[in-house]
Parts: sequence; C-alpha cells; structure tokens
Amino acid sequence: MQVKTPEQSRTIMTDLVLPSETNPLNNLFGGELLARMDRAASIAARRHSRRIVVTASVNHVAFNRAVPLGSVVTVEAKVSRAFKTSMEVFLDVWIEDRESGDRAKANEAIYTFVAVDETGRPIPVPEVQPETKLEKERFDAALRRKQLSLLLAGKIKPSQASELKALFD
Amino acid sequence: MQVKTPEQSRTIMTDLVLPSETNPLNNLFGGELLARMDRAASIAARRHSRRIVVTASVNHVAFNRAVPLGSVVTVEAKVSRAFKTSMEVFLDVWIEDRESGDRAKANEAIYTFVAVDETGRPIPVPEVQPETKLEKERFDAALRRKQLSLLLAGKIKPSQASELKALFD
Amino acid sequence: MQVKTPEQSRTIMTDLVLPSETNPLNNLFGGELLARMDRAASIAARRHSRRIVVTASVNHVAFNRAVPLGSVVTVEAKVSRAFKTSMEVFLDVWIEDRESGDRAKANEAIYTFVAVDETGRPIPVPEVQPETKLEKERFDAALRRKQLSLLLAGKIKPSQASELKALFD
Amino acid sequence: MQVKTPEQSRTIMTDLVLPSETNPLNNLFGGELLARMDRAASIAARRHSRRIVVTASVNHVAFNRAVPLGSVVTVEAKVSRAFKTSMEVFLDVWIEDRESGDRAKANEAIYTFVAVDETGRPIPVPEVQPETKLEKERFDAALRRKQLSLLLAGKIKPSQASELKALFD
Amino acid sequence: MQVKTPEQSRTIMTDLVLPSETNPLNNLFGGELLARMDRAASIAARRHSRRIVVTASVNHVAFNRAVPLGSVVTVEAKVSRAFKTSMEVFLDVWIEDRESGDRAKANEAIYTFVAVDETGRPIPVPEVQPETKLEKERFDAALRRKQLSLLLAGKIKPSQASELKALFD
Amino acid sequence: MQVKTPEQSRTIMTDLVLPSETNPLNNLFGGELLARMDRAASIAARRHSRRIVVTASVNHVAFNRAVPLGSVVTVEAKVSRAFKTSMEVFLDVWIEDRESGDRAKANEAIYTFVAVDETGRPIPVPEVQPETKLEKERFDAALRRKQLSLLLAGKIKPSQASELKALFD
Repeated sequence: MQVKTPEQSRTIMTDLVLPSETNPLNNLFGGELLARMDRAASIAARRHSRRIVVTASVNHVAFNRAVPLGSVVTVEAKVSRAFKTSMEVFLDVWIEDRESGDRAKANEAIYTFVAVDETGRPIPVPEVQPETKLEKERFDAALRRKQLSLLLAGKIKPSQASELKALFD
Repeated sequence: MQVKTPEQSRTIMTDLVLPSETNPLNNLFGGELLARMDRAASIAARRHSRRIVVTASVNHVAFNRAVPLGSVVTVEAKVSRAFKTSMEVFLDVWIEDRESGDRAKANEAIYTFVAVDETGRPIPVPEVQPETKLEKERFDAALRRKQLSLLLAGKIKPSQASELKALFD
Repeated sequence: MQVKTPEQSRTIMTDLVLPSETNPLNNLFGGELLARMDRAASIAARRHSRRIVVTASVNHVAFNRAVPLGSVVTVEAKVSRAFKTSMEVFLDVWIEDRESGDRAKANEAIYTFVAVDETGRPIPVPEVQPETKLEKERFDAALRRKQLSLLLAGKIKPSQASELKALFD
Repeated sequence: MQVKTPEQSRTIMTDLVLPSETNPLNNLFGGELLARMDRAASIAARRHSRRIVVTASVNHVAFNRAVPLGSVVTVEAKVSRAFKTSMEVFLDVWIEDRESGDRAKANEAIYTFVAVDETGRPIPVPEVQPETKLEKERFDAALRRKQLSLLLAGKIKPSQASELKALFD
Repeated sequence: MQVKTPEQSRTIMTDLVLPSETNPLNNLFGGELLARMDRAASIAARRHSRRIVVTASVNHVAFNRAVPLGSVVTVEAKVSRAFKTSMEVFLDVWIEDRESGDRAKANEAIYTFVAVDETGRPIPVPEVQPETKLEKERFDAALRRKQLSLLLAGKIKPSQASELKALFD
Repeated sequence: MQVKTPEQSRTIMTDLVLPSETNPLNNLFGGELLARMDRAASIAARRHSRRIVVTASVNHVAFNRAVPLGSVVTVEAKVSRAFKTSMEVFLDVWIEDRESGDRAKANEAIYTFVAVDETGRPIPVPEVQPETKLEKERFDAALRRKQLSLLLAGKIKPSQASELKALFD
C-alpha cells in the first residue's frame, strides 16, 4: 500500500460563524466547532485512506480563544499518523480579523478515525510519511498519544507505555 | 488604495454533502449549493475589501453535474474584478471521487458583492490585478458581464455596451 | 402534450425571516434567499411538468433591497416558457411592512429547471401559453435569455443569436 | 378599529418535505408540520392585527394522512375569529400528487395567537367579518371552542358555557 | 400484554433555547417548542409500546409563559392512558432560572400517538396502570378528552359522550 | 460558597437520531454527538455554578458503538470535580433498543467548562462533594486528568505531575 504525506490529505474548510451557532456571549458554541472539525477531519481521513471512515475518538481539544459571531473561521486538517486501520488527524483552527486581515490561532484538536468497509469492518490504511518539521513532531507525539489512550482505556499496562514512561524517568 | 491579486482573496470551503441537503434523486439541492457558494463568495469579497459585504447579484450559475449524497465538495472563490464599490467573485466547484481521488468540475458561478459601511452605504474597494492567464481572461470578461447586466437592467443602451456590441459586429 | 398557462404552475411560499438566516447587518443572507427561491421554483417546474425536476441554471438574480430579520417574505414562482425538456421559471419576491401592510418588491430571479425521469434522463415538458401582458413579455424575453445563455456557454455563435443580435442593430 | 375579512389575512406557504424532516417511515414528522403551521398562522395573525403576535395555544390538530418525503405541502391559514386581543387561526393543509396534480387534505389545525406591544402586553385587534359559508361556520364554532378552552382551564363553570351546554340538551 | 406504569415511559429532554429558535421578542418560537414536545412524546409512546409510533393528534397546548433565549428547558413526557392502539401522552415543560436555580412551569400539552407495524397499520399497545395521585387524575381525564375528541370529529353523538355529558348535568 | 453533589448538576437529554444527523452508513455523525454532549455538559456546568459557562476543553471521547438512525439516545451529564473556576463534566451516553427496551452504553466523554461573568472573565465555582462509589472514582481520576492536561500543554513539568508519576513507579 502506497505511503502518503500529510499534505496529500490536507483539507481546508473556511466558513462564517452564523447567528444560529452562537452562545449567550455571542461566540461560537464549542459544540458547533466540534462538529465542523469532525467533518473536516473525516474528509482528511477519507483522502488518506480512500475508504469510508468513522470517528473513533476525540483525543484532546482546547478552546483557547472565543470565536465571535460573524468571524471567518478556517479549519485545516491533516492526517498526522496512521496505525494499521486508524488515522490520527491533527486540526488547526484560525480566525481572521476582517479589518487587518490578521489570522490568529483559535484552537487545536486531535481526532482519530477508523477506515471501514461497507459492512463497517476495519480495513488497513496507508502509512504516513511526514515532511515538515511540524509534521514530524506531530508524527512522533502521535505514538505517545496512542499509548496514553490505550493506557487510559486499560488496554495496556503502564510498563508497556514505553514512550510515556520515558517522560517521567 | 492598495491593488490586490485574486490570489489574496482566494477562499476554499471543503465540506461533505449531508443527508439534509439532498433532493429525491439523492443529489445535493441546487438551492443548498447556491447558499454555500454565497458564503464562500462573501468571504472572498470580504478578504479583498476588508469591509462588510452584501450580495448584489448572482450573474450566472450552471449546474452541469449532479453532486451525490456523501460527496466531498470543494468551493473555491476568488475576486475576479472590482468596480468602484462592487466586486465580481468567480467560483469553481469540484467534487472528488472517494476511491480514485479524482476531482471533477461540478459547476462554475459568478456572484457580485458590494462593500458597505456600518450603515449599509456603499464604500470603495481596492482594484484587482490579475496574474495567471485564467485570471486575466476572467478579468476581461467581467467588463462584458457588467455591461450585459446594466443592459438587461435597462441602465445603459445597447449602443453604450461597447464590449458586448463588438461580439455581434 | 397539453399546453399550460403560467397560472397553472403558480407557487406561493410565504414565510418569516428567522434569526438563523441573517447576516451581521441583521438582514436575510443572499444565500438563504437563493435556497428558498430554488425550492419555490422547483415546485412550479414540477407543477408544470408533473415530473422530477432538477436545477439547470440560475440566470440572473438581483438583490435590490435588504430583507430585515422578522420580515414576512413572499416568493411567487411561475413557469414563464418551456423549451423541449427545460423550463424557465420567473420569480418575484415581496416583503411586507407589518404596520402598514404595504408590499414592496425585494427582487426578481430567473431559474431554469430540466424535467427528468427516474434515471435522471431529460424528458419533454408541455409548452407554455402566456395570458397576461406581463406573462407575454417574459415569454418573449425568455428566448433572448436562452440565446444569451447558449452564446455565453459557447454553444452557438453570435450570428446565430438572432434575437439578441437585433438588439444591437 | 377596522373590521377585516378572513381573506385579508389569508396566508399560503407551499414548500417541499425535505429529508431532514422525516421519521423512520419516511413521512414528515408531526413536530415539523406543527412548526410550519405555527409560522404560517403567526403570519396570518400578524396580517390581521399588524402587531407582534405570540402563540397562545394550539387547540386541536388531527394528523389524518401521512405526508411522504418529497411531497409538496401547502399550508393555508386564515384568521377565523377575533376576541379582544386574541385571534383564532384556522389552518388547512394539503398535499399534492406529482403525477396527477390532485390535491388531498392532509389535516386541519386551530391555533390561537395574542397581539402584543413591544413590551409583550396584550393589545386589541380588529374584529373578523366572515364572508363564505365555511368562514361563517368556523366563526360560529370558534365561540364554542373558546368556551371549551376556558372550561377545560377551569376559568368558567359548565353552566356559563352556554354554547357548549346547548349541545348536550 | 403486560400492563405498564406512566413512570416506565417517562422521558426527560433538557436542552438550551438556541438563537435560531427565537422570535422577534427573543423568546422561543411556539412552533419550535411544539416540535421538541413531539419528539419527547414520541419517545415516551415508543417506550410504552416498543413499536414504531406516529403522531395522531395534538389535543391542547397552552403557552402560558414566554421562554427566553438562553433558557434551560426541560420537557417531561409520560404516557397517561392507552386506548387499544393509541396512547395519550401528557407533557410538562419547565424552565429554570440560571441564578436561583428555581424551576417554573412554562406549559402543559397533550399529544396522542398510534403504534403501527412496519407497513403503517395500527397495532395494540399495553394498558396503563397509574400510580400517583396526579397520574390517576390524568388517567381519568383522558377518557373525557377522548370522548370530546370523538365528539368534535363527529364520530360519536353528544348523548354517547357519557363522561362529558355528566359535566353539564 | 456552598459545596454541591454531582447529583445536583445531573442533566438528562433524551432525543432521537434524526435523518439530518447521519453519515453514509446511516449512523449518527460523531460531530453531531459531540455537539449534543457539549449542550448537555454546559447545562450541568451551569446548574453547578449558576453562572454563564464556556467550553474550555474536550478531554477524551471514545466512540465505541455506532448509533443508528432512529435510535433513542440519552446523554447524562454530571459535574465530576471543580477546580477554582473550572468544572470537569463526565458524560455517559446510552442507546436504547426499541423492541427489548434494553439500554447499551454507546460512549463516555469528559468536557471541561469555565464559569465566567458577563465580561467573559473567569469566576470561582462551588466545590464538588462526590457521594456514590462511581462519583468518587471519577472525582479522584479528575485530578490525574487535570495534571495530564497541564503536562500535555507544557504548563507543568513531568516531575510536578505527582498523581500521574505514581502510575509509572
């Protein structure tokens, strides 16, 4: 199976914050942004695998900056690493100031998708070959996140989480 | 006021076709695609002008290819030409085959936006400096479309539509 | 096949402007109005043809007047002319002042639909027999618009656009 | 205050049944139809009163016929009777067969609205002058429904419900 | 068939009032609340019958209290009585003050559902065994409402509506 | 400030999976479930704090089981622990089989909210007093998750994450 770069799955979703998506402070609801990111990430996972994909987990999302009504929001998604049938997708979210045109980072998120066949059974996906420095860092960190996730789910023991354990030594 | 290139207003909106947006043949409703294109075009016009923008007209949209449920649709919008307070935005819409990854052109559209201040009054926008061959063709054709639009609205006489008239000589 | 009048396909869609459909100036988004008009026009085309219909093109829409939040909007659609398998639908959009009850024209639009069978293949539709003065004017202009559309698409030469050419002589 | 006919408040809302509005049997959700009828009835009440109006009650709605996905549904609303600050709105809902063009009654409903000022306080509305036989029947029945409603709410005693009591004598 | 208590079908739907659901006074649209109540009531009817259920009628809904944007709204639905293939569902709607935490009754509603098989044909449902004082009152009143409904629909004569007639003697 | 139990913030949101929320396999989109959970969790955080609350992060969500179209989904949210101005909310999601009535766990999620004043500035919240065994386990684990979150964000060093470090010793 052909190896792919993160660039090959890169997905850009630029859209407005509509009035129906805001909370009482007139900022984008966290839940709406989670739904948009899920759609963008699923397209990236699909571009990487060329398969039907389903959300397996949301690993961590931090909402660092409120996104006001009327903002232009850009969600950028790339597959950061693949593990047999699953893909970690890294998302960067930017908002843009209308007057200056400056872009500011609003948040980052990590979703995991699984490729499945028509019956819903997991199916292998291509490996990822990172190119840029940032892509390489995210590729490496993906393994630690994978171990952490297995550890939290009780599927491996702390002693097996070699990458994580190293952090505390 | 600073001149800008079409590239500077380029806006990409990639998203899925959701079940709530389909007609009885299980293809994307024309009206839903019109609404998506309006949002993408308004972002491009806003990036060009850094102003509030409102839709002034939809000049021509041809739906050449059905867009099936579950497709990945990419709308790409760029300001093709500016006239004092208005901007013509050219849109290209692509759909992507999940298995082969091939992209096919689904349709093209042209929207016009006006930049306004907080009270809704029109306000000047930067000129456009086309760079690529395609951008130059679209820039030139924009004038003919402008004349055609004024002619159809009865605001100029056929004899004043110099660019159009030349077509028939 | 039975000839039909525009009145026989007349479709009225009166509805409110909801908060989820407004832009930062608190007016109806152009894109939302485009979607509503597409639904009304498709019903008119369906009433004329009694077939499944799909949007083929949007020929021209001018947004002359902002439609504020809370307005009552009436979209009125009638098939203005038929060409073998396609139908031109003319739309008039009115907004209504709550206090005085006065109606004002907000915009006009022209959509083209194609009648298709269950497999999506084009299928003939009845001719249109206009009755009122306005219906006759729109019926006549439809041919010029058809030629213009073919000309812009490069499917006929300027010399073949007899109706249009006459405008410039 | 000027007396008005039901015809003067008549409101027509024709629209499609979209995939997002259907239940597991592929018919329109009761709740969606209730929401559409509420919007149409509120426009009729607003046309009668030229005031802000709020839903006061839904008196009776019977769903006699399933409304399948893709149907054209016409909701027709008219103010049937006014009582000081409130208006009874009678709704008829029709569905239309695409092939034959026949219309069938899908259901009837009765909503009551109150006219209010900007602070939400009830404010008087014009009386209703019914014209057709059906409008007169509905006008008369409105008083019985009003008494029934007050009786069920415990605001009048059975002996005061003169119109209703007569039914059982 | 097993008898069930109202408690066994009890359904709680707590959610926010979102900006897209409000009228010009910034309160929840009546129509949106009707749609939410329909979904909650259908779940209660489904829990009682374990069948596909469809809305048969809305018997009475009074909107006694405006529900402002941003409110937390709790809809509570329980099957109050069953009649062969139909179920009366009683709904209580509460809103909650953010600062004090106090709950206030916003309105009550009564919906009727019918259980159907896969072809849409009515099918018997279990009887209801009320437990609390309120459940017993609602169970008894359901019969009067049933007679009233049949009477208004012209399906029984006033003399047959024994429960109702007693009110006026 | 008064200490509160998790039970006092308990929020139940039972609703259907609608056709507009499903993916090509006819299961609920991950993104839609994330948005529902965000609304339920925000209500729980609001009940605990009686303040405006905003989503700060989503700590971990695993989608273990597909949720098919037409399912009844119950989201249950409780504040599991509070840290000065932030609250960890633990969510359990259940789906219900229509025929047997059996409930199955579909997934768990952990969201963090911050209480803010009208200007968006963080403001202290009551502490949590867990009561049941499960509430106590989740209360204890919340501190480990908090340290993990700070560690991953680079805000503390591995040596400061005492709770986590203990896992690997």
